[in-house]
Amino acid sequence: MNHQGLREKVVAANLEIYRSRLAILNWGNASEVDRDAGVFAIKPSGVDYEVLTPEMVPLIDLASGEKIEGDLNPSSDTATHWHLYNAFPEISGVVHTHSPNGTAWAQARKAIPCLGTTHADTFYGEIPCTRPLTQDEIESAYELNTGKVIVEHFKKTSLNPLEVPGVLVSAHAPFTWGTSAMKAVITAQVLEEVAKMALSAWALNPAVGPVESYLLDKHYLRKHGPKATYGQN
Amino acid sequence: MNHQGLREKVVAANLEIYRSRLAILNWGNASEVDRDAGVFAIKPSGVDYEVLTPEMVPLIDLASGEKIEGDLNPSSDTATHWHLYNAFPEISGVVHTHSPNGTAWAQARKAIPCLGTTHADTFYGEIPCTRPLTQDEIESAYELNTGKVIVEHFKKTSLNPLEVPGVLVSAHAPFTWGTSAMKAVITAQVLEEVAKMALSAWALNPAVGPVESYLLDKHYLRKHGPKATYGQN
Amino acid sequence: MNHQGLREKVVAANLEIYRSRLAILNWGNASEVDRDAGVFAIKPSGVDYEVLTPEMVPLIDLASGEKIEGDLNPSSDTATHWHLYNAFPEISGVVHTHSPNGTAWAQARKAIPCLGTTHADTFYGEIPCTRPLTQDEIESAYELNTGKVIVEHFKKTSLNPLEVPGVLVSAHAPFTWGTSAMKAVITAQVLEEVAKMALSAWALNPAVGPVESYLLDKHYLRKHGPKATYGQN
Amino acid sequence: MNHQGLREKVVAANLEIYRSRLAILNWGNASEVDRDAGVFAIKPSGVDYEVLTPEMVPLIDLASGEKIEGDLNPSSDTATHWHLYNAFPEISGVVHTHSPNGTAWAQARKAIPCLGTTHADTFYGEIPCTRPLTQDEIESAYELNTGKVIVEHFKKTSLNPLEVPGVLVSAHAPFTWGTSAMKAVITAQVLEEVAKMALSAWALNPAVGPVESYLLDKHYLRKHGPKATYGQN
Repeated sequence: MNHQGLREKVVAANLEIYRSRLAILNWGNASEVDRDAGVFAIKPSGVDYEVLTPEMVPLIDLASGEKIEGDLNPSSDTATHWHLYNAFPEISGVVHTHSPNGTAWAQARKAIPCLGTTHADTFYGEIPCTRPLTQDEIESAYELNTGKVIVEHFKKTSLNPLEVPGVLVSAHAPFTWGTSAMKAVITAQVLEEVAKMALSAWALNPAVGPVESYLLDKHYLRKHGPKATYGQN
Repeated sequence: MNHQGLREKVVAANLEIYRSRLAILNWGNASEVDRDAGVFAIKPSGVDYEVLTPEMVPLIDLASGEKIEGDLNPSSDTATHWHLYNAFPEISGVVHTHSPNGTAWAQARKAIPCLGTTHADTFYGEIPCTRPLTQDEIESAYELNTGKVIVEHFKKTSLNPLEVPGVLVSAHAPFTWGTSAMKAVITAQVLEEVAKMALSAWALNPAVGPVESYLLDKHYLRKHGPKATYGQN
Repeated sequence: MNHQGLREKVVAANLEIYRSRLAILNWGNASEVDRDAGVFAIKPSGVDYEVLTPEMVPLIDLASGEKIEGDLNPSSDTATHWHLYNAFPEISGVVHTHSPNGTAWAQARKAIPCLGTTHADTFYGEIPCTRPLTQDEIESAYELNTGKVIVEHFKKTSLNPLEVPGVLVSAHAPFTWGTSAMKAVITAQVLEEVAKMALSAWALNPAVGPVESYLLDKHYLRKHGPKATYGQN
Repeated sequence: MNHQGLREKVVAANLEIYRSRLAILNWGNASEVDRDAGVFAIKPSGVDYEVLTPEMVPLIDLASGEKIEGDLNPSSDTATHWHLYNAFPEISGVVHTHSPNGTAWAQARKAIPCLGTTHADTFYGEIPCTRPLTQDEIESAYELNTGKVIVEHFKKTSLNPLEVPGVLVSAHAPFTWGTSAMKAVITAQVLEEVAKMALSAWALNPAVGPVESYLLDKHYLRKHGPKATYGQN
């Protein structure tokens, strides 16, 4: 089996989506790229998490987006992952979930405001919500255009994808990413938790605004970047 | 034991209702029909899920709706299942749950709007809510009339029961169906998940409308029908 | 050990409170009476559920309300149970929980309206909320007066305690009862589930009213009383 | 290993944070002080709960706040714990969580009102929410200043930290404390449960006020202080 390690990591990340209930049934998917090899591995389409093995994981050519190995069809969202890997060279893992609270914000077509330090520890500002895709974008190359609409938002608003490692696709659901598939899953767990907290906080006080910029800086920067003090590094 | 395979499938589907917490205690029920044999199997009334065995599952004659085998009384909702099987020849499994979020929408007497792709992947449009039954319909042949009110809604609005594989009975709870009892349970899981998401989305943004028809088409039709691309088929 | 069977039933019912998460920590309590013996058994005060054994369960004299056997202090709510047993001769088990949704309604000081058949299957009408206790009632014989306020509500509104087998004590939490401790626990599970459903239904549609009296009759009476058709009786 | 017993208690308390889902991932932390030895033990920074062992737990000098033993960096919140131990001599354990409902109230920047007896059994009045920290307080000695803002609130409002054993830090999350780390974790569990109940109660009835002072007295004082009657003491 080629790229066995990559495929094993992708299986582990996908299982963690299911185990932490970021998706029920066979919803959701995780992928990871080996940039040196020019290949990414992704969940096969419509396969139940419990039966997933490394052998079942398709390999996709990073340059062309075409499957180069594997008997099964790759995730229907493969083109979204592919576009994100090409547009965001700093990321190596992508995750898509239908986690209930994150999806509720996506369906409300609202960004998740940064209402507290739990959010600021992982996301350097709000978790954005894309514009809706147009009819043309949906009717042709839908999954690729989903990736393009995400990237359009990040370019237009000058967001750094490692500082804001996730997004809500309008009327759809969350995508997250990171330096590995497992890190993207963990970010998806954080997104779901802060989505739940923000929903409740907003119910208690619709007038509450985002955290002050200096509190955002303090929390984000104590965990990320050259001046980070959190953890054992 | 006659129809052992059918009874075993019905036991498995009923256990999955309980395991996935679509009902507590002994609430809810699942059935499956063998149309060639003209027989359907259904959960016995008021029996706890943990003790359910194939031997305990009553068999009902599809033509008459009468029990033809089994020591135990069939589910009190048997006549609803029976009517659905006769009115919707394309279905082979029926499930009734009291899942909390789906039931909340039924109690609010509101259809669940299709607010996102999670919903559109399974239901081709809103999950409808029937009209309330009249006093006469309730006081005579209540369970049969529950089935009739469901079918009336689908006929009047020209819905295809495989495209909209579930309904809320006003002030009551969800019914779902499909090509097997287990598939109907999975649809009941989806119904509960989208009911939860829609409840939260609506709290965040009561002005949000249903997804655009072209997004609905894209998601529903990539998973269902002759042009489906999802999965391994 | 005297009344070993009674004590074992009380242990089992208390464990089920905890297992079904109707209370966290050591909150909540269940009791059961042996009316022929004139004795009831109740959870000891402040003991963790996991360590509870029949030997630890105090016995209380039904006539006097005084402990007649057991090393441990009985539940601080013993006088409430005692009063309910004496005022409602048709009941043999009493349960008190702090289940989160039921308690939320009690804290909102509102009865849980009967919004659907899930509720109507167990409670013949709304789950009432008592009036607040007065300062005098709280400062002297508080627990006994809690029982008295419950009974006052049932007498004043001519409710049958087996038809409405539970109540919310204003600003406090639910009490349920039945023909055994375990049945009272199951009723407490139903109360919590319908409290959750009603909370969500009411958020979706604050204008929704209780179910029609004929739907209430149909559902309650198909499960209870001489004309019941549900189950295997 | 020095202070092995203290470190083992801190490991057990931290595991209980995770087990009872008061925090996901590696969020949250618990500490306990040995006042005779002038030392406290605290969770190391950024370590996963499942792998935590007593050897990994750093020891901090109570007088200086400096680490005196342990290979790993202590929790980034160590200075908050340290200040609380010095300001509140009656406490011996401190816990910080990001439990979802408690954090929602903190993000809404609102105290949790005492709406019922569940709350009154543990907290003698509302669970306060601190003022926001200023930019200066955040940019220098942030974690120490978090402790100072908590203590400022308790001094200004003359609260007894054993009677109100917890607080919400505005836009951040809960801190709780007690006579041991494990007791502070249990209080954090209570805080989360009453936060959830209050959120729902407030949704049902925004006009509801806190419990009457005599009900608060009755419940708090039957569990705490010289006249307590609850439990086996």
